[in-house]
This record gives sequence, C-alpha cells and structure tokens, in this order.
Amino acid sequence: MGQRALILFAHGARAASWAAPFERLRDLVRARLPGADVSLAFLELMEPSLPAQVAALAAAGIEEVTVVPVFLGQGGHVLRDLPLMLDELRASYPALRIDAVGAVGEDPDVLRAMTDYCVGALGAASAAPKGGV
Amino acid sequence: MGQRALILFAHGARAASWAAPFERLRDLVRARLPGADVSLAFLELMEPSLPAQVAALAAAGIEEVTVVPVFLGQGGHVLRDLPLMLDELRASYPALRIDAVGAVGEDPDVLRAMTDYCVGALGAASAAPKGGV
Repeated sequence: MGQRALILFAHGARAASWAAPFERLRDLVRARLPGADVSLAFLELMEPSLPAQVAALAAAGIEEVTVVPVFLGQGGHVLRDLPLMLDELRASYPALRIDAVGAVGEDPDVLRAMTDYCVGALGAASAAPKGGV
Repeated sequence: MGQRALILFAHGARAASWAAPFERLRDLVRARLPGADVSLAFLELMEPSLPAQVAALAAAGIEEVTVVPVFLGQGGHVLRDLPLMLDELRASYPALRIDAVGAVGEDPDVLRAMTDYCVGALGAASAAPKGGV
C-alpha cells in the first residue's frame, strides 16, 4: 500500500447491480495507478461509507487522500454533504491531507463521451427490434 | 420539429445547479442531431417528467422516441422504474414507437473518459494548494 490514496465517492443504491460500473471504474483506475491505493466509498445504502474508508486509510498509514465524486450532477450531495464530510474528516485526521476534485460529470471529456453515446443511441435504437429496455 | 425524438432521462435533484451538465449534454447532442427533437426528462424533483415529455412529443407528431438513461449505475430506477414507465407509455401511445438503451455509465467510452478523469485527479489534487472542495 502506498502513501497516497484515491477514493471514488459514489451515491450508493439498494440494488447490488448498481455498483457494477463503479467497480469497473475502480479496477480501471487501479490498473493505471499501481503506486496508489484506489477504493470506492458511498454516501448511502452501500459500504464502506466515506468516513469509514478514510479511517481505514489513515490507519493504514496513508498520508494523502484525493476524493473524486463519481456523480453526474453537482447537487446537494456534492456541493453540501461532501464538503461537510470532508471538513469533519480533516478535523478528525489532522495529519492526513484530504483533497477533492469536481464531479466526473463536469469533466469535458466525460461529457463528450456521453454525447457520443447519446448520438449513437438514436441510430442503435432505430436499428434494433421494437422493444428495448 | 422532426419525426424522431431523443429523450435524455436523468434522476433530478433539488438543487437547480444539478441539472447543468445534463443541459450541456442536451445542447451538445442537439447540435449533433439537427433532424431530431432532443430533450431532457426527469424521474423526480425536476420538470418535465418522462410521461409529460412523451405526451408533449406525441402531441407534436413525433413517431419514434428513444430514451437514454443518463445514469451512472443501473439500479432500481433504470432496471425497474424506467421499464414500468415505458410499458405504461407504450400502452398510452400505441402509435408511438418507444425504445430505450442502456445507462450511459455502462458505455465503455464513458467509462474510459471517467477513468482518465480519476487518474488525472490524483495529480491535479496533489499539485493544487491544500483544500479543494
């Protein structure tokens, strides 16, 4: 385990299937950052919570944590809940440097990839037999 | 207005700021599909709802609607709520062809762009002054 950690912070949901793309994202990021500790944490309904994950990292000797909100929109969870949690965590772990970046949905390249998918969806749905979901 | 429509279906949130990336996505997709009607619809907390938007499109003479779930995870909203809504809408508008595709978060290119963003976040946060969000 390295000295730096990246936490992919997602909403969480009741259905276990919901986490699949987040787990794939974690695995892809982990493969690209062999020197860092890459993990998932959730706001609600799934484990670990962000405080639990930060506590585990601090106990493991991590010195720097970067939190990436894996949310499309920056609503109350990203703009209000997350900063409050980060403030509490910084107070609880003064030796730990905790940073956060903007939500993935605000990234231009993510937006571009979603645009391509949506544009392609019109053709894909028309070519497919009636029904879909 | 064309005969085909694309509805970008998102969760919705209390904070108006939440919708910003979805509105940008709609505008980017609209620019790429000048012959189609591209709109947003929401599951909750924001307007229009999916049924309201489908009703408006049907009234405007649209014949084919493709729904793209702009969700990262496929949980209950995408796997249960949406198919039920689509079945009801198909029953209400038998002349309208309504298709849906998988959630944007399941798309490999979207996942790749999110991976790049997360990998870059570690460097960005370390280079930035302490604090972040």
